[in-house]
Amino acid sequence: MRFDHAGVATENAESLAFRYEDLFGCEIAHEERFGDLQVLFLELDNGYFELLEPREEGTISRYLENHGPGLHHVALETDDIEAALENAESVGVELIDEEPRPGAWGHDVAFLHPESTGGVLVEFVEH
Amino acid sequence: MRFDHAGVATENAESLAFRYEDLFGCEIAHEERFGDLQVLFLELDNGYFELLEPREEGTISRYLENHGPGLHHVALETDDIEAALENAESVGVELIDEEPRPGAWGHDVAFLHPESTGGVLVEFVEH
Repeated sequence: MRFDHAGVATENAESLAFRYEDLFGCEIAHEERFGDLQVLFLELDNGYFELLEPREEGTISRYLENHGPGLHHVALETDDIEAALENAESVGVELIDEEPRPGAWGHDVAFLHPESTGGVLVEFVEH
Repeated sequence: MRFDHAGVATENAESLAFRYEDLFGCEIAHEERFGDLQVLFLELDNGYFELLEPREEGTISRYLENHGPGLHHVALETDDIEAALENAESVGVELIDEEPRPGAWGHDVAFLHPESTGGVLVEFVEH
């Protein structure tokens, strides 16, 4: 499995993107409105930052209320997300998404429950 | 810049390593006692998880008390950490480490203040 992206909850994706561009030399690779979020991907040499800005009430707006801005999840890329989920279930990991669902940028995604992964919210993603 | 690792604060690095090995197919690449921490690196195809288990009082033990286990920081690899720090300072980012310091695995590391990076604790690392 490959590191795909670090998901960051933020009140202002565009302003944080400018900062990360200056700081890390990464550029905007993709931007879209996805559900209740404005989502912005910044490209590193071997992965992305995914900046998540809520535009309506939802999980990220609640996350910001409870935790403030910062690291929200880490996403790992797999060539076979169904097999990755089956394996996760077989080793006793609790799944948030039992089946892959459409994520931002047209990718298939599924989240694992942080209780099963040492408090880390992990996303599987298949491009 | 390249993604290098996601740092995870945990009460038990060995047990979390077994879980991640089962779940992500990653193997232990390096393990050492570093200061007040037991540090364990798990290798992905293009980076690492760094599991941080406190063995004494310190920043990670306090982090666990305040936040519980989970994502602690994200590390970006650079070929020139001094230049990366100079650039960070020049764009107005507050530095935790003004100069690189020795980190785990013999790497040079420096942390940026999360107030300057959207709440994300970012580490620069030069191998």
